[in-house]
Amino acid sequence: PDETAAEQMRERIGQLTKPPGSLGRLETLAVDMAAVQGTIDLHVRPPAVLVFAGDHGVTAENVSAYDASLTRLMLENFTRGGAAVNVLASEIGASVTVYDIGCAGAPVAGTEQIRIRRGTGNIRVEAAMTKEECSEALDAGCDAVKRAVEGGAAVIIPGEMGIGNTTAAAAVSAKLLDLSARDVTGVGTGLSGEDLRHKEAVVEDAVKRSDKTDPSAVIQDLGGLEIAAMTGAVLEAAASRKVILVDGFIATTAALAAVHMAPWVRPFLFFGHQSEEAGHRALLDALDADPILSLGMRLGEGSGAVCAFPVLRMAARIPREMAVFSDLGL
Amino acid sequence: PDETAAEQMRERIGQLTKPPGSLGRLETLAVDMAAVQGTIDLHVRPPAVLVFAGDHGVTAENVSAYDASLTRLMLENFTRGGAAVNVLASEIGASVTVYDIGCAGAPVAGTEQIRIRRGTGNIRVEAAMTKEECSEALDAGCDAVKRAVEGGAAVIIPGEMGIGNTTAAAAVSAKLLDLSARDVTGVGTGLSGEDLRHKEAVVEDAVKRSDKTDPSAVIQDLGGLEIAAMTGAVLEAAASRKVILVDGFIATTAALAAVHMAPWVRPFLFFGHQSEEAGHRALLDALDADPILSLGMRLGEGSGAVCAFPVLRMAARIPREMAVFSDLGL
Repeated sequence: PDETAAEQMRERIGQLTKPPGSLGRLETLAVDMAAVQGTIDLHVRPPAVLVFAGDHGVTAENVSAYDASLTRLMLENFTRGGAAVNVLASEIGASVTVYDIGCAGAPVAGTEQIRIRRGTGNIRVEAAMTKEECSEALDAGCDAVKRAVEGGAAVIIPGEMGIGNTTAAAAVSAKLLDLSARDVTGVGTGLSGEDLRHKEAVVEDAVKRSDKTDPSAVIQDLGGLEIAAMTGAVLEAAASRKVILVDGFIATTAALAAVHMAPWVRPFLFFGHQSEEAGHRALLDALDADPILSLGMRLGEGSGAVCAFPVLRMAARIPREMAVFSDLGL
Repeated sequence: PDETAAEQMRERIGQLTKPPGSLGRLETLAVDMAAVQGTIDLHVRPPAVLVFAGDHGVTAENVSAYDASLTRLMLENFTRGGAAVNVLASEIGASVTVYDIGCAGAPVAGTEQIRIRRGTGNIRVEAAMTKEECSEALDAGCDAVKRAVEGGAAVIIPGEMGIGNTTAAAAVSAKLLDLSARDVTGVGTGLSGEDLRHKEAVVEDAVKRSDKTDPSAVIQDLGGLEIAAMTGAVLEAAASRKVILVDGFIATTAALAAVHMAPWVRPFLFFGHQSEEAGHRALLDALDADPILSLGMRLGEGSGAVCAFPVLRMAARIPREMAVFSDLGL
């Protein structure tokens, strides 16, 4: 990050026609974006939503309120523009590109086919994927961001779809942060009571099974193909000096893994929202992150991050378009 | 509010392709807007920002970090599009109309001249305005909303400008809620230490001086011309069944007064943000309000409410544009 641009932004904001500090988060976001973009002339349009999709062998353990076949139906829904993220992305002028990184069902027309394997292994009893597959998934995420950046994307919003992926993300998070299964296991698509305790036991078994500690090895052993791809996407977007708008629990798990691999990534991360999914708070705390919104959302797909984009956009415009006190003759 | 439309909206949302409740606040906002608009086909565009401006005799007591003459300079700034609210309103496609309800300086071209008097009396020692003046200011706020509604406005965003108006709003709030000056006096444009304690003493003196309890009499005695106009705007917007997006401390004071006058107004109020100004939380609690954003802002002008508008817009689009599970063959 460019500390000179950040300092120039602080100076600029100090001259704007308003009491010092009175725009709160809009001011600090502008400073943080200046550091990322290396200029006070901030540009955040167009944003690109990259939805990475994969299936999870651990669904055999009945850890979701939905059948694993829903992943494929939702991919069809994305391509027809009917999912929440489509509607929200349309509001912010973002493209939505869906990458099938590792779904199990028949390929869906209109999705980018980068399928590395048909779903992961059941992490309760076996590795999610091989080392090579994990590396390929990371690369696929990098490539997706390269394409988006070549297409002119100014902000990268990684999203995901994959029935079972809160279980995988919980296992990865618990391992990366040395937390208990209880700390990171949440309702996902809507579990309660016994079902939630069962999911927690599955996460605990998976974490106990794994002896990995290196972040990419943890993803390989306990994660998901879409989680690996999101991690790759974050690494590439940061290398390209792009603002990365991070969604909820799954996306933050991928961002955490990226930061554990490469701590210099952290200043490029902007956290869109506080998810209702239990465990998200622990990840945000570990990343010293203060999310922009807190709307009680827990959908994934990138939806919460997309909701936060207008705040980034406003923060980008304020320093460029507001008058300064000298314009008022003061 | 239309409970039938609200129930229809709950049913519609229950069919959308997402886990129940997973869009959090977007869902409850959609239900609340359906009740206001009497339909599940929500429309929130265009929004109209109405900035009411007035001066305050209490500035003679040195209660602000800025000179009272800044009110007029800011009116010029609004007409040139250089204020924060102009930039933010442009992002949401809102018009900004500035009403000079009671400024003290020379009239500013490009503002609507509905000036009722040249600033208020010094509320520490005298009434802010006469009963007739207060009534005229309430009417001016009503008329401003009528014009906006005739112009097609779907959402009303009342904003304000007036050096000294956090002092007046604090006095009104303390009186309406029977709170101490300390509970509701904040930094305003940026006071600290001795200056803040002095402001608190001024608010305390004003509240002690006043024997009024009726909400319009409290505004007349302790408030401001722009605060009275905002109260009128809220009453008229609710009578027109419009969604009202409430800004920070001053706007919420006016909204509180409106609710005290007419409790049926409450369901039409949507609270845009939690301001950093001390006292705002007490007002929100009294109104049982959960603001959409919390961005550490404390500028006024309607700026925080404008930042929240994209969330309302997204909440309005989701039920109309998302697919339902039967579209997926489920």
